[in-house]
Amino acid sequence: MGRTTVRRQVLRLRDQTSTRRPDTLAGEEPMEIRVGGKPLTVTMRTPGADFDLAAGFLVSEGVLHDGAQIAGIRYCLGATADGGNTYNVVDVALAPGTPLPDASLERNFYTTSSCGLCGKASLDAVRTTTRWSLEEDHTVIDPEVVYALPDKLRAAQRVFDSTGGLHAAGLFTADGELLVLREDVGRHNAVDKLIGHALREGRLPLRGTVLMVSGRASFELVQKAAMAGIPVLAAVSAPSSLAVDLAAETGLTLMGFLRGRSVNVYSRTDRLQVSEPVG
Amino acid sequence: MGRTTVRRQVLRLRDQTSTRRPDTLAGEEPMEIRVGGKPLTVTMRTPGADFDLAAGFLVSEGVLHDGAQIAGIRYCLGATADGGNTYNVVDVALAPGTPLPDASLERNFYTTSSCGLCGKASLDAVRTTTRWSLEEDHTVIDPEVVYALPDKLRAAQRVFDSTGGLHAAGLFTADGELLVLREDVGRHNAVDKLIGHALREGRLPLRGTVLMVSGRASFELVQKAAMAGIPVLAAVSAPSSLAVDLAAETGLTLMGFLRGRSVNVYSRTDRLQVSEPVG
Repeated sequence: MGRTTVRRQVLRLRDQTSTRRPDTLAGEEPMEIRVGGKPLTVTMRTPGADFDLAAGFLVSEGVLHDGAQIAGIRYCLGATADGGNTYNVVDVALAPGTPLPDASLERNFYTTSSCGLCGKASLDAVRTTTRWSLEEDHTVIDPEVVYALPDKLRAAQRVFDSTGGLHAAGLFTADGELLVLREDVGRHNAVDKLIGHALREGRLPLRGTVLMVSGRASFELVQKAAMAGIPVLAAVSAPSSLAVDLAAETGLTLMGFLRGRSVNVYSRTDRLQVSEPVG
Repeated sequence: MGRTTVRRQVLRLRDQTSTRRPDTLAGEEPMEIRVGGKPLTVTMRTPGADFDLAAGFLVSEGVLHDGAQIAGIRYCLGATADGGNTYNVVDVALAPGTPLPDASLERNFYTTSSCGLCGKASLDAVRTTTRWSLEEDHTVIDPEVVYALPDKLRAAQRVFDSTGGLHAAGLFTADGELLVLREDVGRHNAVDKLIGHALREGRLPLRGTVLMVSGRASFELVQKAAMAGIPVLAAVSAPSSLAVDLAAETGLTLMGFLRGRSVNVYSRTDRLQVSEPVG
């Protein structure tokens, strides 16, 4: 495949001088996810770990929770007019007895509440779909472990080093050991790839783990963590209001602004091994 | 409305000490966009400039190119079970004679090429939908103007200052004057809000302007710029491969890694006022 990175010519300006040189860019291609031959969604992603991406997306959306529910995953053959394979259409065959995704998934997960669309309805939709309770996960983490996560994530990012352009998601143990890392131009995709990998390895729910992401913490990232049974999510940047609300609702520990030896904890602060607040 | 930012309690850890304090977060709520009463898509956005967001999304998807095509935009009434308005469902009424969006839009723009999904097909889909040719736009920009854009964008970002959590999109003249700025938890939304505002002001195509975004440059951001007739897109971070390819295909000047007094130019470098490359 070899499309994870591509080379392009670039004009580099610095002050008043300019130079031309080749540059390495993060690859981006559309990928269609089908279930049983039926198109479900298209995402713009960095090629690589495509089967994990398809599987993880279906976990996030509540379709899969066990690797045994997958009968097979393959690239659709003869996808182009001349019969060549673009490796951009992935079909997931479900095992007998696994319900097909709801038709509403075709448009968007949140539209299950077709009237009165609101944050609360979105929270309810995730809460009622989540298979595992994070409330029961009694993982405890040392702040020193948390502070060390960004450097570990960065050190493991290979593609970023060459392109400077990829989001990363890393799954760690509560002791800070890196279990798996995935990169993508889309931060949602990086998390889906990671969760899909775990699903296919039979490791769901991911109790006792910490998910670290390179960007912000949105509602959808908290949703993905909760659907995979991950009790702790840490982000380099800010969380949104609905991300914090969903974390509180599902019992997930949400951390943001993890920089240097400082971090903000927005929910389930009891999982952090700290002395009582001084203020 | 007042939901652009919300307050939540946070536990702040620094080294081995912890303090509790209220924190301001960027608001995030789902918003459904309908056309003529028919649901089209749902996006997670920061409330505010919702009508601009709906209009801009429809420009990006090739449905609208002129403000006169809009008969009206309104929040759907009685959207909740108890008849209250969530202000999260926006309906765009098209003027007589404006074609309804293609049914394929319901799922994804790119699926217009249902077989052989590939980067090239995505480029073709945008090229054939773009109403204005950027090739004819002979805007020329001084690198000094480019270098000054990030600071100007940052200075104008009000919500970011309080939450640290919003993407920004700014539209500038070729002389570096800020025309309009929009913020959102989603960078696509920030651009759609900006373009929707311009559409409703009757300013499309946005010839001679520069769009500056706070994050990476993806395929979809280049698509949005091209659909609005914006000839120059500058990003703080890296572009993807398909973003560069689409920029080259549509004649857009794409710049990335705009930091300090340095920038990379990936396409239509002739719009930059520079002496000949030295290397």
